[in-house]
Amino acid sequence: MINVLDSHIIHTFLNPKSVAVIGASKNPLKGGNRIVNNLVNNKFNGKVYPINPNAEGEIYGLKFVPSILNIEENVDIAIFYVPNQMIPDLLRECIQKGIKGAIIEASGFEEVGEIGLHLRDEIKEITDDFQKVHIVGPNCMGLTRIDGDSKSENKGGFFSSFGVFSHYYRGNIAIISQSGMLNGGYLMHIFSSYPKIGFRYSISIGNKMDLGENEFLEYLIDDPTVNVIAVYLESFKEPRRFLELCNKARVRQNKTIILVKGGISQLGQKAAHSHTGTLAENERLINALIKQAGVIQANSFHELFQYARTFSMIYTTKKKFPVKGNASMIAGSGGAGTITADLTHKHNLDFPLLTKESYEVLLDVFPEWMPPNKFSLVDIWPAMEKAMMNNVNPQKVTARVYKALINDDKIEGVFNMLFCSKLYREFNDLTDIIELLRNNPKPFFFWLIGDKREVEKTSRFLSEHDIPDFPSLEDMVKNFEILVQEAKNKNNFKSSDTIQS
Amino acid sequence: MINVLDSHIIHTFLNPKSVAVIGASKNPLKGGNRIVNNLVNNKFNGKVYPINPNAEGEIYGLKFVPSILNIEENVDIAIFYVPNQMIPDLLRECIQKGIKGAIIEASGFEEVGEIGLHLRDEIKEITDDFQKVHIVGPNCMGLTRIDGDSKSENKGGFFSSFGVFSHYYRGNIAIISQSGMLNGGYLMHIFSSYPKIGFRYSISIGNKMDLGENEFLEYLIDDPTVNVIAVYLESFKEPRRFLELCNKARVRQNKTIILVKGGISQLGQKAAHSHTGTLAENERLINALIKQAGVIQANSFHELFQYARTFSMIYTTKKKFPVKGNASMIAGSGGAGTITADLTHKHNLDFPLLTKESYEVLLDVFPEWMPPNKFSLVDIWPAMEKAMMNNVNPQKVTARVYKALINDDKIEGVFNMLFCSKLYREFNDLTDIIELLRNNPKPFFFWLIGDKREVEKTSRFLSEHDIPDFPSLEDMVKNFEILVQEAKNKNNFKSSDTIQS
Repeated sequence: MINVLDSHIIHTFLNPKSVAVIGASKNPLKGGNRIVNNLVNNKFNGKVYPINPNAEGEIYGLKFVPSILNIEENVDIAIFYVPNQMIPDLLRECIQKGIKGAIIEASGFEEVGEIGLHLRDEIKEITDDFQKVHIVGPNCMGLTRIDGDSKSENKGGFFSSFGVFSHYYRGNIAIISQSGMLNGGYLMHIFSSYPKIGFRYSISIGNKMDLGENEFLEYLIDDPTVNVIAVYLESFKEPRRFLELCNKARVRQNKTIILVKGGISQLGQKAAHSHTGTLAENERLINALIKQAGVIQANSFHELFQYARTFSMIYTTKKKFPVKGNASMIAGSGGAGTITADLTHKHNLDFPLLTKESYEVLLDVFPEWMPPNKFSLVDIWPAMEKAMMNNVNPQKVTARVYKALINDDKIEGVFNMLFCSKLYREFNDLTDIIELLRNNPKPFFFWLIGDKREVEKTSRFLSEHDIPDFPSLEDMVKNFEILVQEAKNKNNFKSSDTIQS
Repeated sequence: MINVLDSHIIHTFLNPKSVAVIGASKNPLKGGNRIVNNLVNNKFNGKVYPINPNAEGEIYGLKFVPSILNIEENVDIAIFYVPNQMIPDLLRECIQKGIKGAIIEASGFEEVGEIGLHLRDEIKEITDDFQKVHIVGPNCMGLTRIDGDSKSENKGGFFSSFGVFSHYYRGNIAIISQSGMLNGGYLMHIFSSYPKIGFRYSISIGNKMDLGENEFLEYLIDDPTVNVIAVYLESFKEPRRFLELCNKARVRQNKTIILVKGGISQLGQKAAHSHTGTLAENERLINALIKQAGVIQANSFHELFQYARTFSMIYTTKKKFPVKGNASMIAGSGGAGTITADLTHKHNLDFPLLTKESYEVLLDVFPEWMPPNKFSLVDIWPAMEKAMMNNVNPQKVTARVYKALINDDKIEGVFNMLFCSKLYREFNDLTDIIELLRNNPKPFFFWLIGDKREVEKTSRFLSEHDIPDFPSLEDMVKNFEILVQEAKNKNNFKSSDTIQS
């Protein structure tokens, strides 16, 4: 744990005024090139010094400097992308220069056995146990702070990853990860898979030789620009402190931590050891710790980011968390309704009975030959057919049903199945009701099927209004379940003893 | 159960020589219009008679006929798309005309209560308990037989659904479903989501007033063009017969049945009742039945079609089913390897130790500073870096590793994580090794991440060579688990008593 006096160091790491890139290179396939590229092209508003004793001339308009000692001005942070064996000597120069922190992106430490362990010990000694300089990494993808969308005028921030960042949105999610993939290739995937998913920070802690999850968590819990913290860990650095911080986050009504723990099984631990040099942890203790932390646990990367996106949208639109798990559904297919009912039961949710008022609205829009259910699973198709027969715009009918469900006290959220095709565009044209869906306190979740292009178009439209859609019915139901779980996490805390933090 | 003498009726339903569309309409928004459209535009090679006493002129080049009794030639099958109350009288005319079967796509029967029950009884009486004419439906999306891809010269088949079929591939999968959505909107979704997923039949049985899952299953088990039968049921018509048929399928080395049972929970049963008029079944009995049937159980539509696609490709490429569940993985990320290892353990699979021969190949391609694992989880990145440093094409290294895993007797299949981006296209260019991946007896599964366009391009390329990729790591692992399960299903049967069928 870092000293309290040192706590501003995290702020410096995420908001440096000047950085040196040690290992900058003209070769665009090398990481040292891409780090400078990321900083320059994403309008980092501090100074950047590319360091390489063997390179001459310029890189992205900046002059190469042979050594950090050749720089006259102050340097806050040094970013290392050089072979592991070269690091100790270069780090000594950095300390001499008086930098505050080093981000070591190179690998070849604890995860490769003896040579790496020796290197780690050498660095501990050089830095006087990290008192002289703090370290993020090694074996990591750096730190990223996003100030504005890549296509906006406010584009900018601090991009120190060697992964390419060309297309991104600013949002209220922060990532802390021990797998660089989540800060690099997979993050790129997430940005291009989900229209308009936004991040504030992407923090890659790698082997966490010095700074780890706790130091960054502490900072993010107090950062008002962050609502959702998505965490991937292969080990806990100080489990007790982690617990305290999770409990601190639970008291905040606008913070949610989602955790994927890798290396839970013996097989996973073998894998984690060769990845980040993590030593085996007791499976039972880990599970007990996660349970006690009261965080949302995800089982995979897919769940981690899907959950993060859902919470992000819920916080952005100020929706109320469902407490009892009472959902409702509007489906255009009886089969989809039946399977969703089974999934709803499986995930500890329910479709309650409609109030008299809601049922009367349904009776009015449904044809006599096909009366609606009395419980809150609405197969809307017959009502649509009736509307068409009477030349009524089907969206007017849907809007009436939505309003009834929004006003129904028993119902805490609405699942929707929408069929998207060019021929029936009037069914998936949500233009007139999108504000209603967005600006009411209940979560509205969508499952879209049909023609791929129409599905993607509708998904984009929903996303622009912070309403999530899901690729499968079980994803939709599971994402409602975690909202209920988070409501419990926050409530349980209130009723238990206060934990000092 | 239909009479043995009648068993050719299923063949007639799927291969009629002439059909009457009762309720054909000029209005393109009406189902009766789209049924004729589907038949004509998909080159149905039999006769089509549009029936409507109130319509004049032509529809898609065919003359309207006022009544089926006005047709001089024989009519095999009548397709009904008229309001429920009109059906009894029109059915009487059909019987008078001597048709062999009726497909009733209209709804408003068991699922709407008393009026519908009365209609059903009337139809039973008119047809002399379905002795005079067999019925598919009501409340269904008709029958579809696909003879060739929509874009090919061999395009054609029998398309009697009121859902639009414009883009499809012929393949070795058949669907039997009690939810018309799976034969309509969701099938359209599947065709446009997965590049090159092929179907042979789509059979919508609706309320199964007469013919149901068993009659079609019996036919499909003997149909050599079908390998995979994807089934969605809300009730079992004759559970004992269903069991016999599943056991019959298990003996065939080239048949797999995948089942989603809707209405397993009480909430699901309430939904199923209002959908297909299904009465509640005992949850325990259902689960016991499914277990005894030895079919692959899917929990959702997403799983149903993803499993179907995997089996379809495995049968097409004549891969061997893994028996022990010994997988291996080639990943470009330690985190992805760790999570996959946890998922592998969770789904009762393993990454065994490599044989000496395989390990020696890895030692050769890996750099000294980062030796490979001894168990079959290969973080390939260091080997790629070494290849690039030595100016060796990375795909040559991957090919060597793949060959080692293919020759390794302990390993039954290979998971792959591939990062797809324009900048690093050399890593996801599989051109030189695609035939190796396809034409060896072990399943190769892919998880693709990176830039969406590059991911989709690589996914298409793999799909064209019948190699599946999956949207998440857990999907990839679950799809390997079901292969092991199917190997057990087939083996268990061999060692148990033979069941007469």
